[in-house]
Amino acid sequence: MEITTLHVARLPEPGPLTPDTYELHRTAAPQLDGREILIRVIYLSVDAGSRGMLDDRGSYVFKLAPGAQAIGTGAVGEVVESRHPDYPVGSFAASLFARWGSHLKLAPDDPAAPVFRVDPADGPLDAHLGALGLTGFTAYAGIFLNLPLAAGETVVVSAAAGAVGAIAGQYAKIRGARVIGIAGGPEKCAYVRSLGFDDCIDYRADPEAALRAVCPDGIDFYFENVGGDIQRIVLSMMRRHGRMSFCGQITQYAGEGEPPGPNLMAVVLQELTLKGFLSMPTYADKLPHFRAETAAWLKDGRIRHDRSIVHGLENAHEAVNALSAGRNIGKQLIQVSPDPTMR
Amino acid sequence: MEITTLHVARLPEPGPLTPDTYELHRTAAPQLDGREILIRVIYLSVDAGSRGMLDDRGSYVFKLAPGAQAIGTGAVGEVVESRHPDYPVGSFAASLFARWGSHLKLAPDDPAAPVFRVDPADGPLDAHLGALGLTGFTAYAGIFLNLPLAAGETVVVSAAAGAVGAIAGQYAKIRGARVIGIAGGPEKCAYVRSLGFDDCIDYRADPEAALRAVCPDGIDFYFENVGGDIQRIVLSMMRRHGRMSFCGQITQYAGEGEPPGPNLMAVVLQELTLKGFLSMPTYADKLPHFRAETAAWLKDGRIRHDRSIVHGLENAHEAVNALSAGRNIGKQLIQVSPDPTMR
Repeated sequence: MEITTLHVARLPEPGPLTPDTYELHRTAAPQLDGREILIRVIYLSVDAGSRGMLDDRGSYVFKLAPGAQAIGTGAVGEVVESRHPDYPVGSFAASLFARWGSHLKLAPDDPAAPVFRVDPADGPLDAHLGALGLTGFTAYAGIFLNLPLAAGETVVVSAAAGAVGAIAGQYAKIRGARVIGIAGGPEKCAYVRSLGFDDCIDYRADPEAALRAVCPDGIDFYFENVGGDIQRIVLSMMRRHGRMSFCGQITQYAGEGEPPGPNLMAVVLQELTLKGFLSMPTYADKLPHFRAETAAWLKDGRIRHDRSIVHGLENAHEAVNALSAGRNIGKQLIQVSPDPTMR
Repeated sequence: MEITTLHVARLPEPGPLTPDTYELHRTAAPQLDGREILIRVIYLSVDAGSRGMLDDRGSYVFKLAPGAQAIGTGAVGEVVESRHPDYPVGSFAASLFARWGSHLKLAPDDPAAPVFRVDPADGPLDAHLGALGLTGFTAYAGIFLNLPLAAGETVVVSAAAGAVGAIAGQYAKIRGARVIGIAGGPEKCAYVRSLGFDDCIDYRADPEAALRAVCPDGIDFYFENVGGDIQRIVLSMMRRHGRMSFCGQITQYAGEGEPPGPNLMAVVLQELTLKGFLSMPTYADKLPHFRAETAAWLKDGRIRHDRSIVHGLENAHEAVNALSAGRNIGKQLIQVSPDPTMR
């Protein structure tokens, strides 16, 4: 059997990816060893890192060189070959990490690359790349695991219309906080409010004035995913003993390196805690609890999962561009092959 | 009885204080209420905040307006009037906070302004403004209370020849860490090494190259007291799960406001924790334990206390200038009246 893999053809210039950024390779399907499985990929996860890892000046965690197979934070698909008794052919599986291609070899017994059996009766397959995948787990780690958050506190979530931010804010609401989102434009702000956030600020207007109006007593907890001016404004508004949970700084993943940050005197004066986290592998032992809790909240409607889909591996660059330009609502996916669970 | 008080006459220009910054007032001794005491001040504590609180562009915690009585982080003196049975006339007392003058009214029963009985047999009086005073407690809070520190970790202490930094590094040695100081000039570096630090870097040379040479595997814990370039360099060298304990940013207490800080992407990538603290009142309940531990370490020589003295309240500006210019070794004091315990 032949499969298709997607590779980086060239590192992009700043701005949108061009169609020649990636190229498709055809190759023989991999041999399975031990208790491995092969899935036909249905959905691939796209996130801010998909662009960041192509930019040698940006500051994302991982970098890809030309020739390397593209990678991302998860895939879900149908098992087409199996040497593992828990994953029979015809069942569905999700992985927290994925090399991009038409098929993906997985080792369910390897704890370093978590794989889960997926039951379509529990909800749409793609939720395992969103609320139940690394996207949701990153939000979960940033709200529940990285730093304490008490009911009644004021929480600000940046990139709130993004897949991680949207879920982070919903988690903070479950914790009993007052939650303010920050997003780009009135349409996205309306979307964020529709998720149950108490309010949402448009960063394209005057974010400092808007944030001070809606948080007149300051901010207790900040879910940080953007960096830049918003980071500086929020830092200046933090209340005594406030906490800033650092997930990322997406404004600098593609661009001219690392701009200066905010003066940190407020860290002393307000006795703040700033703490960064990488959900995996740091909190890997919390994955089962996260999935059980979040699956229940998806069922009872306390967590809502949305997605935007680009069709076809050959259009991967468009999915990355949609996310970079902020055109997506909810989790950005690439649909690689038909989803038999969708009617 | 008449006493003398020192007041701010005018806010200074950038640079050294001029003799007309402060002025002496003569006034009647205050009446004692309740269980208050009056001490004849022997030593006053001078620290970075003494300059910072005069600068309306700087970013120190407190500001003083013209006309206000000068204040500082402690005084030690001899009780000359007493309505408190534990503080008889002729005994000695130390306070963690002090209005500057020849005499000081204290309320030993007020927990918000800690006062301690001082036994000269336990060591020199001025140690109660240094290792046993707010100076030492600030170092103690930053090393032992604010963030965890494990034996064998690499600790960097900025402003290591300063009163707080010198003690912070000695505490980190007691904890079993490898401790690197940063100070200005070879003489100060030699002083820092004489305190038992494993090494000391001169920030006037090439601090980044020097720090990378002496910490080839990076830094686990940073006692931050300076801000500026050193902060940026240290942040770039922090190891995974490193901690930065923020005590202050003395490079900006006098000057042109708040310069930008470091880009904080490393907080995410290395999963760092940055945490600010104000030793008082946040850790007030730990004061007795701090004093007992530190007194024992002073006696057994594991903590060394040094001081620099300027004589006379009328020379207060010179004491502040000595500290700002870095001419002091150890704790900077103003001696206001004779110390009967010194031969």
